[in-house]
Amino acid sequence: MKGVGPLPADFQAGEDGMLLLGRSPGPTNHAIDLAAAGTPVFAYDWSVAKARIDRFRAAMPEEVALHYAVKANPYAPLLEAVAREVDGLDLASGGELQRVLASGAGDMPLSFAGPGKSDDELSKALAAGVTFHVESAGELKRLLRLASVGSSRQPRIGIRVNPPFGLKGSGMKMGGLASPFGVDHDEVAALVRRIVAAGADWRGLHVYAGSQSLSADALIESHRATVALCAGIAEEAGAAPPEVNLGGGFGIPYFAGDKPLDVESVGAALDETLEARPAILRDTRFIIELGRWLVGECGVYLTRVLDRKVSRGKTFLVVDGGLHHMLAASGNFGQLLRRNYPVAVAHRFGAEPEEEVSVVGCLCTPLDLLADEVLLPRAEVGDVIAIFCAGAYGPTASPVGFLSQAAAREVLV
Amino acid sequence: MKGVGPLPADFQAGEDGMLLLGRSPGPTNHAIDLAAAGTPVFAYDWSVAKARIDRFRAAMPEEVALHYAVKANPYAPLLEAVAREVDGLDLASGGELQRVLASGAGDMPLSFAGPGKSDDELSKALAAGVTFHVESAGELKRLLRLASVGSSRQPRIGIRVNPPFGLKGSGMKMGGLASPFGVDHDEVAALVRRIVAAGADWRGLHVYAGSQSLSADALIESHRATVALCAGIAEEAGAAPPEVNLGGGFGIPYFAGDKPLDVESVGAALDETLEARPAILRDTRFIIELGRWLVGECGVYLTRVLDRKVSRGKTFLVVDGGLHHMLAASGNFGQLLRRNYPVAVAHRFGAEPEEEVSVVGCLCTPLDLLADEVLLPRAEVGDVIAIFCAGAYGPTASPVGFLSQAAAREVLV
Repeated sequence: MKGVGPLPADFQAGEDGMLLLGRSPGPTNHAIDLAAAGTPVFAYDWSVAKARIDRFRAAMPEEVALHYAVKANPYAPLLEAVAREVDGLDLASGGELQRVLASGAGDMPLSFAGPGKSDDELSKALAAGVTFHVESAGELKRLLRLASVGSSRQPRIGIRVNPPFGLKGSGMKMGGLASPFGVDHDEVAALVRRIVAAGADWRGLHVYAGSQSLSADALIESHRATVALCAGIAEEAGAAPPEVNLGGGFGIPYFAGDKPLDVESVGAALDETLEARPAILRDTRFIIELGRWLVGECGVYLTRVLDRKVSRGKTFLVVDGGLHHMLAASGNFGQLLRRNYPVAVAHRFGAEPEEEVSVVGCLCTPLDLLADEVLLPRAEVGDVIAIFCAGAYGPTASPVGFLSQAAAREVLV
Repeated sequence: MKGVGPLPADFQAGEDGMLLLGRSPGPTNHAIDLAAAGTPVFAYDWSVAKARIDRFRAAMPEEVALHYAVKANPYAPLLEAVAREVDGLDLASGGELQRVLASGAGDMPLSFAGPGKSDDELSKALAAGVTFHVESAGELKRLLRLASVGSSRQPRIGIRVNPPFGLKGSGMKMGGLASPFGVDHDEVAALVRRIVAAGADWRGLHVYAGSQSLSADALIESHRATVALCAGIAEEAGAAPPEVNLGGGFGIPYFAGDKPLDVESVGAALDETLEARPAILRDTRFIIELGRWLVGECGVYLTRVLDRKVSRGKTFLVVDGGLHHMLAASGNFGQLLRRNYPVAVAHRFGAEPEEEVSVVGCLCTPLDLLADEVLLPRAEVGDVIAIFCAGAYGPTASPVGFLSQAAAREVLV
């Protein structure tokens, strides 16, 4: 028997024992009813995402703006709903810009980071008035050239900084090392002066030290170090940053033993840090950009059991979904160690576990393992398996064309 | 400095030093010209795939049929070209069946394996006259029920066997263990009798012991064991198998130190094995199904350098492609250890290496690493990087929607 991640506390069973989605129990919010219209399906529960946004607002200093990292989940109905509640959107590609413009959220503050922005992407983002976080001297040069020929708008330019520190204990450390991301911190001030001298609209600094951290202490330390670093750069450059994007990095509990992030402690400490900040950052607007933490737990992946089989004493539930929709849950997206996401039988949510099973996808590869040797209530052919923490980096982070399988549906409830 | 996989010997530089694709040197076969129409692009060199098919035919006993595993690369022009040269197609989904029917190859022998075939897939494949490799007693029951109501055709049914052995040294061992794939070998005979008794068209056995093996000895041993296993099952069932699919598993060299598979030795040994086979298999048609080995080396992924940057002494080439097209090359698709695929600068193919660089994709994640600390000739912004062994499990095995990036082009040359 192997461990599973903790079930998000947001989801309950109805009186019939079945998994409910959405906070208003009614027939359309049964997971089973959503599945009846076709599986596999990603169901995104708006009330859960909204609760996260509210929690952020309550925990964080009022002056800290909340941006949504579109890459976490660009599904249009969810993107539109989130956009109405946050202060800006962070983009990682021209494709994301297109999605945002199509969703009608193009008038919000938009920023665009990414180490490999093409000329075409830069031009379209210039036309849309996006704030660029340039990642190298070469990119700045290309951007200024494109701005001088293609657009009557003054380009809005900030700099992504490769900090001398990383976010400790994060799933993905993105600072303190040689890196394709951002400009090495000791070369930033010179670039700031170049931006100001070019007559561009100088927008400030962006520091992204890591992602998926469950440690409040690590985030607190990272925020302190970021504020100090940005103040130092500003002093050296002789230009205050209108904005400082503190990055994101708030994690969610995916695996056995994971504890939710204490966001309230992070907010209280950030409040102190900002109170005590150097004078040059007095008028700076601070931003935290979140993706996974806002929408990751609102998503449930529902997939139906096609077969139950016993092979050499081991029971397999073969489902109609798989890693082509939920690659990360299979443990095959860059993870060193495969661990089980939270998983349940939607028909018998919260029932006592009865048997050890492995849930495998429909693909013809041993990689397609969604839950390995987990204890679950008994599930029959036709029952629906729910995999949680499916709201971020689901279909968009999965090989959806693998074995020419059909796409998963997505719904916002 | 880290190692890279061996460059496939099929590719040469032209007199100008640039990478040529296709065996007939001419302007349209310059990698650079293909890239000029838009990067990133997967270029599939038909002459390379054709050479593999010819090599298989020359090496293998004449009576062994060659099937193409569509999942390796279902790109329509390549699929059509391969279909004209092989004896059958192996499918892993209803989507693949649809692609094959659309390509006009629906009249060839088609077989369908996969642990999670839906009722809809089974029905459509029944209508198309596909041979099923059933993977469980439950699936057989569903199939016979659907055949009895939905189709006037007698269903063609074989059984996929979970063998008591695995393919040694294979990238992915798929036998000898409890498995979602196939029917445990000691339960197969009973199922054969059920198929015959149901009046279905009994088609035989399918044994897939593993994939991506570079060891001729391991494949030889696996073929011997498979023939013996199938004879034993046939004796026990009292029914000779019209077909035995010996699986595939022929690997290609991806990484430093990998040596190409000695296919001629595999063929010579298989010839002996088939000569000496038990009487009950005398009239059996033997099949080998290959995907990766046929088309893997024919593909080259061409991606353009957007930025050159030095961070803390390390040089990065940032390209316009990335793991959203070539996940396996980034080492993030189920690999425990990240190793470099064969890589070159297309403008200076075969030139002496001059500097150590890391080639990173355009995505905003440290996972997007296409070549780590490799020695290459100097590449400037605008130059094209070629990543080899990109003909199988490229775009279809990659998260093409990641960060809403654009799709890669594909061309057959």
